[in-house]
Amino acid sequence: VRTDPTSVSLAARLSGLDVIALGDRMYELCESLFPICRSITGDGVRRTLDILGDVVPMERHEVPSGTAVFDWTIPPEWNIRDAYVADDRGERVIDFRRSNLHVVGYSAPVRRRMSLHELRPHLHTLPDRPHAVPYRTAYYDDSWGFCLAHDALEALPDGEYEVVIDASLADGSLSYGETVIAGRSAEEVLLTAHVCHPSLANDNLSGLALLAVLGQELARVDLRYTYRLLFIPGTIGSITWLARNEAHVGAVRHGIVVSGVGDVGAASYKRSRRGDAEIDRAACHVLGTSGDDHRILDFHPYGYDERQFCSPGFNLPVGRFGRSPHSEYPEYHTSADDLAFVGDEALVEAYDAALAVLDVLEHDRPYRNLSPCGEPQLGRRGLYPTTGGQAASDTVMAMLWTLAYSDGDTPLLEIAELADLDFARLDAAAADLVGGGLLAPQ
Amino acid sequence: VRTDPTSVSLAARLSGLDVIALGDRMYELCESLFPICRSITGDGVRRTLDILGDVVPMERHEVPSGTAVFDWTIPPEWNIRDAYVADDRGERVIDFRRSNLHVVGYSAPVRRRMSLHELRPHLHTLPDRPHAVPYRTAYYDDSWGFCLAHDALEALPDGEYEVVIDASLADGSLSYGETVIAGRSAEEVLLTAHVCHPSLANDNLSGLALLAVLGQELARVDLRYTYRLLFIPGTIGSITWLARNEAHVGAVRHGIVVSGVGDVGAASYKRSRRGDAEIDRAACHVLGTSGDDHRILDFHPYGYDERQFCSPGFNLPVGRFGRSPHSEYPEYHTSADDLAFVGDEALVEAYDAALAVLDVLEHDRPYRNLSPCGEPQLGRRGLYPTTGGQAASDTVMAMLWTLAYSDGDTPLLEIAELADLDFARLDAAAADLVGGGLLAPQ
Amino acid sequence: VRTDPTSVSLAARLSGLDVIALGDRMYELCESLFPICRSITGDGVRRTLDILGDVVPMERHEVPSGTAVFDWTIPPEWNIRDAYVADDRGERVIDFRRSNLHVVGYSAPVRRRMSLHELRPHLHTLPDRPHAVPYRTAYYDDSWGFCLAHDALEALPDGEYEVVIDASLADGSLSYGETVIAGRSAEEVLLTAHVCHPSLANDNLSGLALLAVLGQELARVDLRYTYRLLFIPGTIGSITWLARNEAHVGAVRHGIVVSGVGDVGAASYKRSRRGDAEIDRAACHVLGTSGDDHRILDFHPYGYDERQFCSPGFNLPVGRFGRSPHSEYPEYHTSADDLAFVGDEALVEAYDAALAVLDVLEHDRPYRNLSPCGEPQLGRRGLYPTTGGQAASDTVMAMLWTLAYSDGDTPLLEIAELADLDFARLDAAAADLVGGGLLAPQ
Repeated sequence: VRTDPTSVSLAARLSGLDVIALGDRMYELCESLFPICRSITGDGVRRTLDILGDVVPMERHEVPSGTAVFDWTIPPEWNIRDAYVADDRGERVIDFRRSNLHVVGYSAPVRRRMSLHELRPHLHTLPDRPHAVPYRTAYYDDSWGFCLAHDALEALPDGEYEVVIDASLADGSLSYGETVIAGRSAEEVLLTAHVCHPSLANDNLSGLALLAVLGQELARVDLRYTYRLLFIPGTIGSITWLARNEAHVGAVRHGIVVSGVGDVGAASYKRSRRGDAEIDRAACHVLGTSGDDHRILDFHPYGYDERQFCSPGFNLPVGRFGRSPHSEYPEYHTSADDLAFVGDEALVEAYDAALAVLDVLEHDRPYRNLSPCGEPQLGRRGLYPTTGGQAASDTVMAMLWTLAYSDGDTPLLEIAELADLDFARLDAAAADLVGGGLLAPQ
Repeated sequence: VRTDPTSVSLAARLSGLDVIALGDRMYELCESLFPICRSITGDGVRRTLDILGDVVPMERHEVPSGTAVFDWTIPPEWNIRDAYVADDRGERVIDFRRSNLHVVGYSAPVRRRMSLHELRPHLHTLPDRPHAVPYRTAYYDDSWGFCLAHDALEALPDGEYEVVIDASLADGSLSYGETVIAGRSAEEVLLTAHVCHPSLANDNLSGLALLAVLGQELARVDLRYTYRLLFIPGTIGSITWLARNEAHVGAVRHGIVVSGVGDVGAASYKRSRRGDAEIDRAACHVLGTSGDDHRILDFHPYGYDERQFCSPGFNLPVGRFGRSPHSEYPEYHTSADDLAFVGDEALVEAYDAALAVLDVLEHDRPYRNLSPCGEPQLGRRGLYPTTGGQAASDTVMAMLWTLAYSDGDTPLLEIAELADLDFARLDAAAADLVGGGLLAPQ
Repeated sequence: VRTDPTSVSLAARLSGLDVIALGDRMYELCESLFPICRSITGDGVRRTLDILGDVVPMERHEVPSGTAVFDWTIPPEWNIRDAYVADDRGERVIDFRRSNLHVVGYSAPVRRRMSLHELRPHLHTLPDRPHAVPYRTAYYDDSWGFCLAHDALEALPDGEYEVVIDASLADGSLSYGETVIAGRSAEEVLLTAHVCHPSLANDNLSGLALLAVLGQELARVDLRYTYRLLFIPGTIGSITWLARNEAHVGAVRHGIVVSGVGDVGAASYKRSRRGDAEIDRAACHVLGTSGDDHRILDFHPYGYDERQFCSPGFNLPVGRFGRSPHSEYPEYHTSADDLAFVGDEALVEAYDAALAVLDVLEHDRPYRNLSPCGEPQLGRRGLYPTTGGQAASDTVMAMLWTLAYSDGDTPLLEIAELADLDFARLDAAAADLVGGGLLAPQ
């Protein structure tokens, strides 16, 4: 009956995939990426893009320091080799080699001896979570610092310390990766994840891993939309991409920022600034009909790169998909966001939800009922049970809903919302009705 | 004060009617119609229309078998004389003469001896309700069958049975009745009930009885709208009427499908596909201000003939009025939907609610406040209590609401919704204000 | 940073004011006005306007009896010198000199001896509140009467009484006061309170006191809008003003009727007939973000002078602000609405809320984000904390919301509603952003 191969869902077309292998692939990517010290520029980003590029081919961009991008300027490139605070016996009491979180990102180089009293203003802790090391940055600011557990700070004796940050801030470039998977249409779905955080597993190695594996899979199938994947530093990266692609963004029909998809929290979706763009409705529909706990957040101008894509000069239909929203879980931006905090099952669930959202985008369209005057006789086409008097099946109901509202203007997703029926079910009904000559894509 | 006799409500103009007699008349109609074996065609429908025609005059239509009506074709006419399954002693163990539900509607003729094993696939029961005989049909399908209580099936011994369905499927016609009660306007209110079910009292002898008596009463009074009553077979009947009246349906300004109005369940109204047509608002208002339990259902493409009237090629403003919605009560489409399941009180309550809805339609219109700058001085017209300082009466409030929103564009029903006041009260206030020279129909 | 002095809130510009003194000033005004016998015309109104005029200068209007004002006519002027009912020993059992509530307002003069039986129909009591004297009026009606406590009525022995109302109903005028405080724009904010009630403290000496002191304060500062304050008799007064200013009302951009602001009930706002006028949104926002209990009432055509300003011929954006709505508190329109029923703290709270609403009106406007492509770099302008990784402060969030939605069309109040942030905070953020060159008033 189905004449259009693409009427089969992405999920079905990719279903040969072993689910366990899918989770393993994403989790192992997180493991490979975890030790690298990333920031908004530098070799850590490049090594990360190398690893991701082995999964999904990508074009590498290097934008020189000093380049103006809208209101911003690409900063000097930051690279770090070592950093520590050592006591008078030469023992490292704070050591970058144990965790890259111990150094404030973008710290200026320093090599001095100083008393604990002098050092103290440069030390960041979390008194409320005394075992955890916080994550802090000093972008666009000529300062330096260390992060450590509050317990460890309390245990430091007075005395002189050797303080070393062997880092460089120098002309270089900002790096990002870009993958384009061509579809039948030049209209694009933009999928992005930020690549600028050091050893934090959920934020955002989970997003990078999901995006890379998703890209790898999408490249295997025929697609309606062209998919553009960005692996970019947060804020300055998306602003840079927007500045370099200002003439191009009109092609972006839908977009999702993927972040924090590896924890056990419920799936969440943050609406685009438009609030009811098709991507917003698709994501809300998929989460709403999933039967699982989930959260829908209205747009607010804080968070990840949706801030930039949705800025009023662009106002792109880009939402954000994740699990626990940033800053709402205690592990957020601390050393507790480690590889034990994320899991392959959570990653697979998030992958499936993302794929279901893309399936809606791939298949949503208005249809026209070709027999709109009265109901068509489904029975003589073998689409209706012949013994009457009993309640209609879900399959019949999906056909009746599709016929009742397919006036050439109403997209299938809107019918799914009206019917409170899973989009996939209506999409299958539409395919059957197209096959039966009762419906035509508008 | 009132200059327009039609400003008096239908309910008041018909109030000479004895309420007990009204309930008796509807219930007795159900009793007369109950024994007849109806289906979507055949002599049972004609006998039913004969009886209804004695109450309300109607034009009889006969549409020949084979006539194309949109996607459908009028089927051969089905008539049945007798049907039974008899055991080897000749005793009828299933007998059409006991209840016409025992034969699957539109069964092909059969006259054979067969084992219980051979017969079994042709026997329909309700294992969950073992005492009840289900109602089943086999329209547009060359098959036959019997329905019986599950208990009775269990009691049948193995052995040979004589199986007889003395029915004919032959060229003939589909019959329906149509009553037109002319009003001052050529715009129409369409009221329909289905005439195709055999011995089922609530579904839909109750609807036929209410519609016939309502038509009889409406013919006694001056009316704003022209009322068109259809007594038609479900699905194929409404499709046939639509196909034969395609050029005419533009005159249908409001419509109600009446079904299942005789049980003790709460009144219910299912919105038209438009969702907020005037008929939808009128019905919701009447049920909402009734003080009684009631249910409002959104449109969904399953149910009775509203499916056809609301199909996207017509999208008429036709809702459905009843008590317990079909398939939501256990007696639905079983032998338990008998004359004991319906009652005259329930019928009268439903009749009153339907009349109240029609009263809104008859009287809803925008008015213009002729003294719109500041409130007019109601006191010097005898419309306001002269001793001030106390709260306004309901009568005064109805006048104030009417004056405050009668800008020439806002229909009285919308003001009733804003005020959360009964439409009849606002209508009386409007009549008083017209009498006082403060208001004019727009 | 701030270049526009008026970007500072009214509340801040008036903050030199001693709050205790503010409460004292309003309460003392109530005390001065309490003993005066006011009605819709007469010397009581003039004495009241004299006292209010000492606080805020006003133009006095006298509109002659017999003048036509829309559907109404200015009535004869009513003045009263004395009134009583005396028993056969000459003892005053009902005495106007004890409370002016004892006489029905606008009573015709009378001087007769009569039995209690004859007198009884002229006596008004509250059987449910037997200690309280009700407030009653007899406008536009040639009658007379007395009000008294039900207990007192019950104690009256049968017998003959001397009944005296030494009042006059004669050609004169209706008096009202009008204050105009010029702002930079000719567009107006209309603020009104009714001046026609006798010794009732909350209804509406509280409103008169608040309005007078508010006018006195507004006159001290530079204002965006022109403020027009009306001290007018209820109903006939606002109708008279509307009739005399019909060509002028187009200048009224916002308006508030102030009444009943001295009791301890929660603040309340009744929407204008438009429902979502800027004044409605401003008042709902201020009460909604106050953190205090409050009530929002939809428009209904009963209450105070908002009835007239919102009549369909004008439909002005005028809401009503108060505390407990009229007729919802047992003291309403009785002798229990006395000086003990109102308090200076309640008056100050109401004053502050009213000022906050005016502050929204004074400062609400759309802005344009001058750096709309991506977020501007707040950090290099000193507007963003330099150590990243932590949650944004309220101040930063207010800037981000303002930037995200300032597209030149969206007023700041709408952004406050979206953000669910206090308008004053967004207004301060907007001023900072204007100072930083990132935002411009549209």
